[in-house]
Amino acid sequence: MTDRQVYLDFGAATPVVPEVLEAMLPYLGERFYNPSAPYALARGVRADLEAARATLARLIGARPGQVTLTAGATEANNLAFAVVDGPVVTDAAEHESVLACAKAHDHTLVRVGANGRVDPADIAAALTPQTQLVSVELANGEVGAIQPVRAIATVVQEERARRLEAGERMPLYLHTDASQAALTHSVNASTLGVDLMTLSAAKVYGPKQVGLLWSSDDVRLRPLVRGGGQEGGVRSGTENVAGVVGFARALELASARRKGEAKRLASLRNRLQRQLQASFPTMVVSGPVRDAQRLPGLLHVAFPGLEAGRLVIALERRGVSVGTGSACAASRMQASHVLEAMGASPEVARGSLRITLGGPTTEQDVDYAAEQICQVVRAEAARVGVSL
Amino acid sequence: MTDRQVYLDFGAATPVVPEVLEAMLPYLGERFYNPSAPYALARGVRADLEAARATLARLIGARPGQVTLTAGATEANNLAFAVVDGPVVTDAAEHESVLACAKAHDHTLVRVGANGRVDPADIAAALTPQTQLVSVELANGEVGAIQPVRAIATVVQEERARRLEAGERMPLYLHTDASQAALTHSVNASTLGVDLMTLSAAKVYGPKQVGLLWSSDDVRLRPLVRGGGQEGGVRSGTENVAGVVGFARALELASARRKGEAKRLASLRNRLQRQLQASFPTMVVSGPVRDAQRLPGLLHVAFPGLEAGRLVIALERRGVSVGTGSACAASRMQASHVLEAMGASPEVARGSLRITLGGPTTEQDVDYAAEQICQVVRAEAARVGVSL
Repeated sequence: MTDRQVYLDFGAATPVVPEVLEAMLPYLGERFYNPSAPYALARGVRADLEAARATLARLIGARPGQVTLTAGATEANNLAFAVVDGPVVTDAAEHESVLACAKAHDHTLVRVGANGRVDPADIAAALTPQTQLVSVELANGEVGAIQPVRAIATVVQEERARRLEAGERMPLYLHTDASQAALTHSVNASTLGVDLMTLSAAKVYGPKQVGLLWSSDDVRLRPLVRGGGQEGGVRSGTENVAGVVGFARALELASARRKGEAKRLASLRNRLQRQLQASFPTMVVSGPVRDAQRLPGLLHVAFPGLEAGRLVIALERRGVSVGTGSACAASRMQASHVLEAMGASPEVARGSLRITLGGPTTEQDVDYAAEQICQVVRAEAARVGVSL
Repeated sequence: MTDRQVYLDFGAATPVVPEVLEAMLPYLGERFYNPSAPYALARGVRADLEAARATLARLIGARPGQVTLTAGATEANNLAFAVVDGPVVTDAAEHESVLACAKAHDHTLVRVGANGRVDPADIAAALTPQTQLVSVELANGEVGAIQPVRAIATVVQEERARRLEAGERMPLYLHTDASQAALTHSVNASTLGVDLMTLSAAKVYGPKQVGLLWSSDDVRLRPLVRGGGQEGGVRSGTENVAGVVGFARALELASARRKGEAKRLASLRNRLQRQLQASFPTMVVSGPVRDAQRLPGLLHVAFPGLEAGRLVIALERRGVSVGTGSACAASRMQASHVLEAMGASPEVARGSLRITLGGPTTEQDVDYAAEQICQVVRAEAARVGVSL
């Protein structure tokens, strides 16, 4: 038992940083007005909301009118898929919300490699003249694979060119969920070459249940939630001004710190990886090997023969909080669909920890966590008679 | 110009009361964990979320498993309508979100009386053997009409009994949006005799974009937003723990204060009405005449021949903030669909102010507002040459 707390599950939830909370508080206090009301105080809140939208737009290289505010990334993903009725193509390692939306359409799931990455050639092969939407995340939240979204955009553009040439009028859009990437990678919508992009405040040290869907001028969104006509009629409901203002501040801070933070996190993650590998040569590191192809703050490791759930409980007693896959799946203690898609053995899937470092993580945290993980893994291996 | 601010648009937005903000802050701070994560700190947050759900359930006479948390009342209304594919019956004075959902179905809009109230006999007449959902709000947010939901529940039960007798298997559900009523009226789901009920945190001094849909065990909800499987699979997305905890605290406070507050608000509203009527005998008060049939804190008045938009601007210069109808419609400066449904003349519709009193409103506020309204209306009447 310890008083020391080392949280290493920033991929599941980030704390709201003080600057963000400070930006939010006026709207949970005196500036509580409904932005659609007609008097000056409310018009001031409307102006603040639109200024936050403009900030978000600027940070993703877009115009404010292209930003639809939602109650989180899951809703934004659903809104993206609601654009089309026809067949969709995505990959088998996507977030549950993308997979669930895909499954509500005629869909093709392309495989991912053993490192979790999608091959653009597989997307090309999966496209048919009827395909209306391709959705590939910018970074996988479970094993950290950075997906080749720009190359997939080229594939999509080629298919569009073919359709144009052939006189076919079927539209084809590319969507990316960039939620997990935004802290450490550019999320410039036009540079990425996508038509739709999802972002989440809750992954960039902003509040939960706040997100956005960026869409290009070629896309016509269709409402999931109808009503008073907010968000250009595609997402009704009195706006969460506090949340949106907090999101804008959070993405502003994240963008300013992005480069330095990516480097710092990669260095910390590699330090952790080295310490664990030194103790456990048989430890399996999942996801891409090359640093350029994986999220800098993420380390996905498996200890074959051990149960991840038991490791998590033993670690929490020592003040170390880590995940066992995506948080949603983890709570149901199912085998991870991502590891399954990567062809990982059931043994690896069962013994996997997802360790994600974040803004507050220090070298001392990493060293403490490494030490605790080593002790816990050794004890558990001894208990079940596995040699690592 | 004045430093005095008297906000009288609590129907459009309520401030977050300090006790609610205090309850929320830990979850925007150290208790930021994802409630689906597997370690102790996250399980503690899960427990807090479920405790808040249990509080909400208790306050509406329901079980926690019957409460689906949403991003506000608009989404909850959409979720209610998503239960059925077939014909729906509602009334022409409902909130925009209910009307928009109804219009996505085969729908019948029953008329409302000149006082804004629905006649249960009109609902009975509109039912066909195919009707699957009836939706009537508990209180109208614009003119304050309390709707006879219990009597409509009897109508619905009679139709159900008829179907059972006739061996017909078509289900029929009754939904009520109780958002505007919850501060001053009981929102006990079982007493009301409904199958589905919407509530909003933002109307009971809680945060915006937090709401719930209560549904009886007979109802099978269908997801609008798919993904990680939160909320029993019908409303995915990492939970807004801060918002839900705030909602529970807000509804707790509202429930405890409900009776006294209803009386206090009615007395203040009647004081305001008397002062205005004394000055303007031709002023039109819309909505039910009897206090038992209207929201206690709401006064809807029209000055035929004047433009409400001009009155709002003149009043805001004197520190008095009032609405011109529902906030959503107001910002588009359209004629109110509620007044239209009540058969109000275009002159009345154009000259209407919606004044809603709230927790912080005092006698002094009411007297100040009455004085300013009198001065502004007199000046405007003189300007356009109308005698009131």
